[in-house]
Amino acid sequence: MGDTSHETGTDPIVVALGGNTLLGAHGLGSIDEQLEIIARTARQIAGAIQAGYDVVLTHGNGPQVGNLLLQQEGVSETPELPLDVLVAETQAQIGYLLQQALDNELTDSPDFITVVTQVIVDPDDPAFQHPTKPIGPFYTESEAAEKSFETRRVATGDRPYRRVVPSPEPVELVEGEELTRLVERGNLVITAGGGGIPVVRDGALRGVEAVVDKDKASQLLASELDADTLVILTDVEFAYVNYDTPDQRPLCRLSPEELRAHLDAGEFGEGSMQPKVEACVRFIEQSGERAVITSPEYLMDALAGETGTQVRA
Amino acid sequence: MGDTSHETGTDPIVVALGGNTLLGAHGLGSIDEQLEIIARTARQIAGAIQAGYDVVLTHGNGPQVGNLLLQQEGVSETPELPLDVLVAETQAQIGYLLQQALDNELTDSPDFITVVTQVIVDPDDPAFQHPTKPIGPFYTESEAAEKSFETRRVATGDRPYRRVVPSPEPVELVEGEELTRLVERGNLVITAGGGGIPVVRDGALRGVEAVVDKDKASQLLASELDADTLVILTDVEFAYVNYDTPDQRPLCRLSPEELRAHLDAGEFGEGSMQPKVEACVRFIEQSGERAVITSPEYLMDALAGETGTQVRA
Repeated sequence: MGDTSHETGTDPIVVALGGNTLLGAHGLGSIDEQLEIIARTARQIAGAIQAGYDVVLTHGNGPQVGNLLLQQEGVSETPELPLDVLVAETQAQIGYLLQQALDNELTDSPDFITVVTQVIVDPDDPAFQHPTKPIGPFYTESEAAEKSFETRRVATGDRPYRRVVPSPEPVELVEGEELTRLVERGNLVITAGGGGIPVVRDGALRGVEAVVDKDKASQLLASELDADTLVILTDVEFAYVNYDTPDQRPLCRLSPEELRAHLDAGEFGEGSMQPKVEACVRFIEQSGERAVITSPEYLMDALAGETGTQVRA
Repeated sequence: MGDTSHETGTDPIVVALGGNTLLGAHGLGSIDEQLEIIARTARQIAGAIQAGYDVVLTHGNGPQVGNLLLQQEGVSETPELPLDVLVAETQAQIGYLLQQALDNELTDSPDFITVVTQVIVDPDDPAFQHPTKPIGPFYTESEAAEKSFETRRVATGDRPYRRVVPSPEPVELVEGEELTRLVERGNLVITAGGGGIPVVRDGALRGVEAVVDKDKASQLLASELDADTLVILTDVEFAYVNYDTPDQRPLCRLSPEELRAHLDAGEFGEGSMQPKVEACVRFIEQSGERAVITSPEYLMDALAGETGTQVRA
């Protein structure tokens, strides 16, 4: 597939990769495990590109940014960098591994480029007073109690606790115009990783200590690029209501109004499926055509409308 | 200055930023010191852009990648990533801070974008058997003797030792075509940071544990982009022969042949000025018009040909 096939003027699709499509168990797998998981995900993405979809990629960074934070706190010899700089680092850490895996799948196509991306947030966002975004490793209750930072129960099982940081709403992508031009000109782009680097614009741009939700940032990116489809890839084929209970039920095709009703009824896991569903609803409300939640192995079938949670206006 | 003023078809100039134009003392300054130094450097770069130069930026990463290595080795809880991934992280760490500082200076211009860049090296490069590239903090002789990694005396003074890693020759930029298109289309780009992420191409792309010299990578980038000028910014106004001795003498205007003779006579510091001079000579030998070594505060004067070490065919 040559360069020109990307310059067809079709609307792009934005594919957002969840942590589990990139990493081993809870972000603590070895680099070899990571490379294997990323290669598997890249194969699915490459399939969609070879089928003619103009894919723009974005990804989460919760475990990775948490690891960087722990590492710099564990060593007194080196200066500590603020969270916005660490989010930047994860954009290249993950973007590099993804672009390399994709280049290896798509040998006849132009190379993917990873673009460092800042996202504007509101300095008065109430999230700065109420940290909710889980990052880094999972802890037991007693481990969590010993930490010097704020932790919260975000899962079930033996290790349900994680560090939490503020997660303000993304308002605007600083590099939005440049990204739009890159995508229009046929570049294969990885962008807005980890929700984007959180900055405020008070006279000048300035980084702030937060991690923006990657699903919300993916929706902003998809709307900004006038994408027709937003695909959120995670570890399940469908979004479910009453997940992990006897009443569990997959959601197949539904309207944003129906999905909004499930959201309002609190039927999704707060740190996991809820932001994904919210991003899908917002995308359609802001004139997107279709939003899909599924897992990487079902990507092609989901793009064909045959599986996954499909949301349409 | 609007978007169109960049699409004039003039040849770009590549500006390579040395560690001291980005960081406080030996890479151990606080983030506030870093932000101040970067803002000062960005002001000089912005001046050149406002004067009409099509600037492509690149930068070193020695202290930063060394810090990341120390941090991950100091914490057992998180997985260790190989050196290529850490180089990637520094591209976004430094690229982000630079692009933000430049965006703040150039409010009427399109935003800078930082592109994660892989560079191909030869798996049989003898450098893999002989680590020479200094990274990370500086140590005293006794501190160095206690380290579990290879160190080498690379400077004078109380703390002359640093960790050394392999530094193979850069052969090709993986994203070279994409970068050429971006620059031709008027994007302001930060690329090939830290010498590029070292990869080999044996069937597929694969990262390797090394740090490519940023001056050599900057030359490769400048030649690949058909830049007419390569500017290497460091902490001195000129390259000197017999630096820091009573016979110290600045080099002003000279031919690549004259400069090559000084190189062959071993008149430059091996880990500091020697690779910069080598990069300048190679750039002219490979059909570049002009190479310049100076410090950020003399950038505009040096572009006007009025100061700095000026090398022309």
